[in-house]
Amino acid sequence: MNIIAPARNKIPDSANNMQIINDLRDMQNLSLNWERDKSVGFVPTMGYLHAGHLSLVAKSNLQCDLTVVSIFVNPAQFGPQEDLNTYPRDFEHDLNLLQQYKVDYVFFPSAEMMYPAGYLTWVEVDKLSSVLCGASRPGHFRGVATVIAKLVNLVKPNYMFMGEKDYQQCIVLETMLRDLNFPTEIVRCPIIREPDGLAMSSRNKYLNSDERQKALCLSQALKLAQTLIKEGEKETSVLQKKMSALITQAEGRIDYIAFVDRDTLQPVNAVTDKTRILLAVYIGKTRLIDNCAAV
Amino acid sequence: MNIIAPARNKIPDSANNMQIINDLRDMQNLSLNWERDKSVGFVPTMGYLHAGHLSLVAKSNLQCDLTVVSIFVNPAQFGPQEDLNTYPRDFEHDLNLLQQYKVDYVFFPSAEMMYPAGYLTWVEVDKLSSVLCGASRPGHFRGVATVIAKLVNLVKPNYMFMGEKDYQQCIVLETMLRDLNFPTEIVRCPIIREPDGLAMSSRNKYLNSDERQKALCLSQALKLAQTLIKEGEKETSVLQKKMSALITQAEGRIDYIAFVDRDTLQPVNAVTDKTRILLAVYIGKTRLIDNCAAV
Repeated sequence: MNIIAPARNKIPDSANNMQIINDLRDMQNLSLNWERDKSVGFVPTMGYLHAGHLSLVAKSNLQCDLTVVSIFVNPAQFGPQEDLNTYPRDFEHDLNLLQQYKVDYVFFPSAEMMYPAGYLTWVEVDKLSSVLCGASRPGHFRGVATVIAKLVNLVKPNYMFMGEKDYQQCIVLETMLRDLNFPTEIVRCPIIREPDGLAMSSRNKYLNSDERQKALCLSQALKLAQTLIKEGEKETSVLQKKMSALITQAEGRIDYIAFVDRDTLQPVNAVTDKTRILLAVYIGKTRLIDNCAAV
Repeated sequence: MNIIAPARNKIPDSANNMQIINDLRDMQNLSLNWERDKSVGFVPTMGYLHAGHLSLVAKSNLQCDLTVVSIFVNPAQFGPQEDLNTYPRDFEHDLNLLQQYKVDYVFFPSAEMMYPAGYLTWVEVDKLSSVLCGASRPGHFRGVATVIAKLVNLVKPNYMFMGEKDYQQCIVLETMLRDLNFPTEIVRCPIIREPDGLAMSSRNKYLNSDERQKALCLSQALKLAQTLIKEGEKETSVLQKKMSALITQAEGRIDYIAFVDRDTLQPVNAVTDKTRILLAVYIGKTRLIDNCAAV
């Protein structure tokens, strides 16, 4: 596991007063009174933190005066057949890590507070939400856009740190924040990988040792495409076929392999320097995603 | 016309420095720096101001340290067959009135700035948006909820002043602000009426003198219902029939007459102290609305 050194280690450990906030009103009152001359960084997570999350925390620590991390397994972004109930959780371990990283505030609301009885409001980002992962997971990005609108209103950060592992999520949320005129900017951070290339994900926990090996096919397929592109292949249908063969050989079940414009997520036939490669693959019952710039 | 005395007339006229803001970034920068100890009141309007709007401005002036009025004919809340292009506009006249009322800021953005090319994000309030006016005007409350989410993010008011003339709009927006955790509270203000009872509306301008007379049937039907209720009639089907007869006699074409729970907007069979009466009626080609508490 890539260990990223916690930043901001000027303050001695004993002075670390990380506060845990459960109540929405407490979070609201706190953020309404953020000091104007201090920048606030926000890392929204679903917990079960790994080095990917921690890289976002480290980035926020470096760039901002205050860092808020939320831990909330958002029911609204899970489909009825999905893994809401089995999604891994370990709050104690998460808190421990965040304390080491000298996070200022951990926001840990309950689902009942976030979606009380009579909850009715949804934020939808057209077009971008219905392709790729949105095609396989109807309602997923509606749930993501809605919870982030809520969290941004509660935390009022200047910057929100998000990993490119969830590339489509970055695009959807950048669009949502810009369209609705939220004064919060997303800082996209690179994917953090295991030494063998597997992109960090809380869902990697679902993999048994055989599947863990097979799961390498995602990053390998991306690498293969990048190599072929460097060698001159630009036709995405050709590249897709070769990636597909590699994945199928590893017994991965392909949800999608897509070559898209990096901003609009519209499919492209020929690779350019604006092309992003994205894929979703089932390894056993576990659905994994990964992506990279084509060039 | 009911003339409401402008409040806050401590400052002499010459010191009135009402600022007009066109640019979204200017509005954002201004509101990011609102002084913490000053309360900000916001009156969103589509312009062509009448005594109804001005009563909201007066209320904001009384209750808040700063008042922002927006003038924006929001294309997103008009259906393709509706009156977006003919909706009355008179910016000079509006400014004059707002200056008299010593408004601090007038926010007057363009549609191109509010909905630039590539705009994709919509805020939907389920259930409440699809009944009553929402049934006749599909997409209307989606447009309303979206533009208010945007305006609230740009203006960051403590209080938003809204007239009960648009009763369903009040309910939809209160739900939206609460669900999405916006730190802005709606202050509902009573309907302002012409001396003969017609509820103030920019669309009253569409009425010719014959229609202007017929338009009284809306407030008269509400009065009739209130009288019958006072006399002991609680069955809404009976009340509806009598209101309907009155309106039809005045050559009004009924869109709906509804007796609903004042919070959920669900229809009720018997009147209680939580019942609201709402109606929408076409007078000629002009669709008018009105409402009142049943008791």
